[in-house]
Amino acid sequence: MLSNIRIVLVETSHPGNIGAVARAMKNMCMSELYLVAPKIFPSADATSRASGADDILASAVRCDSLQEAIADCQLVIGASARSRTIAVPEESPRACAERLAIEAQNKKVAILFGRENSGLKNHELDLCQTLLTIPSNADYSSLNIAAAVQVVCYELLVASSQAAVEPELRDVSLASSAQMESFYEHLYQALNEIGFINPDKSTSIMRRLRRVYHRAALDTKELDILRGILKKSTAILHKKYD
Amino acid sequence: MLSNIRIVLVETSHPGNIGAVARAMKNMCMSELYLVAPKIFPSADATSRASGADDILASAVRCDSLQEAIADCQLVIGASARSRTIAVPEESPRACAERLAIEAQNKKVAILFGRENSGLKNHELDLCQTLLTIPSNADYSSLNIAAAVQVVCYELLVASSQAAVEPELRDVSLASSAQMESFYEHLYQALNEIGFINPDKSTSIMRRLRRVYHRAALDTKELDILRGILKKSTAILHKKYD
Repeated sequence: MLSNIRIVLVETSHPGNIGAVARAMKNMCMSELYLVAPKIFPSADATSRASGADDILASAVRCDSLQEAIADCQLVIGASARSRTIAVPEESPRACAERLAIEAQNKKVAILFGRENSGLKNHELDLCQTLLTIPSNADYSSLNIAAAVQVVCYELLVASSQAAVEPELRDVSLASSAQMESFYEHLYQALNEIGFINPDKSTSIMRRLRRVYHRAALDTKELDILRGILKKSTAILHKKYD
Repeated sequence: MLSNIRIVLVETSHPGNIGAVARAMKNMCMSELYLVAPKIFPSADATSRASGADDILASAVRCDSLQEAIADCQLVIGASARSRTIAVPEESPRACAERLAIEAQNKKVAILFGRENSGLKNHELDLCQTLLTIPSNADYSSLNIAAAVQVVCYELLVASSQAAVEPELRDVSLASSAQMESFYEHLYQALNEIGFINPDKSTSIMRRLRRVYHRAALDTKELDILRGILKKSTAILHKKYD
């Protein structure tokens, strides 16, 4: 999955940052770097800050335009320090990485990082399906570009190792809110029927159970199993009292 | 919680790294920086790389010894790029941040980052209760010090905002493996009794249910509720068949 994800730097000014990005990528097991019109590259500053990640710099692909750098990618994600007025859905690095742990297994993905001072331009964001925003201090939100690449690649490495542990589980779609609400209703009825819920306490018990299943982020197959259990439990009760 | 966590840099060689650390901290809403015997500080390089986080540099506390820098801290954590032979428990940045989201609310915490080339020495690690290891490429594991601070502070910011959303839930202890195993046994028996489990398929169903509850990371109160439900369900059956 990580080998399908490309880091694209757009018009980077400082070659030291390009080196620091190469190091951050290699630390996190990533290797594909594309440079769109870098101001100065190659450069001794880049090599020095790469600190042993020279292989990433040596294999970096230099392009004249962003279009060229993402031509063969099916998914394009733009990193942005701030919320933009442009209508592109926003994601946190963690949510994005968890999604890519699945989607990047069979898709080529590009993650774009803009200029040090001004980020990505609107016509560049138009090429992105989603925007990746790193949580930060509202009054001081602009990370150094290599620091931003570090956070994103770190989340990708963590998500890829979690996906390696349980690949078969997350290949089906996650349950929707409506499906979860219907499950909670079913659960509430079943708990009433078996006499577990004391009407006075039902709100706090149900709230706790909601948190549990919310954290579990159920997929639709798992939801089917849980609903099957509820159905079977109450069916037996109905037989008893019929 | 974030204001109770101090970043301590031990004998940093490059002033540029000190500046980059200040920026990484401010980006993630952290402010308390201690410098133990920095090689060169203050410095124009530090100010330049701090890129507007001058306030963090200006209020940085310079100490001659590590002991002095952590004297008032109740919890001391050492960042380390590699597993060490020394017998200190290791944690991932995420696990550590989630723990600190609770513990740092009423404790003063120091997170130590060692020298650029050689990290922390063993006698410095002896002062730490836990070791924080950032997941990385086994063949190229040494992050730039500011990049390491960025990842750790990012996890702290994310954990602090999650803790703000659900403070009451996670203040009890998480269920132990032994408690979870005992729950799975109880669950298996209950599913057998209600006739939900087909002996041929029980392994795969139980495996799926284990994944669900594993992801949910149950605390002991939640486990009590789930066990209460199982108990109530089967008690009714027993009444029926008695």
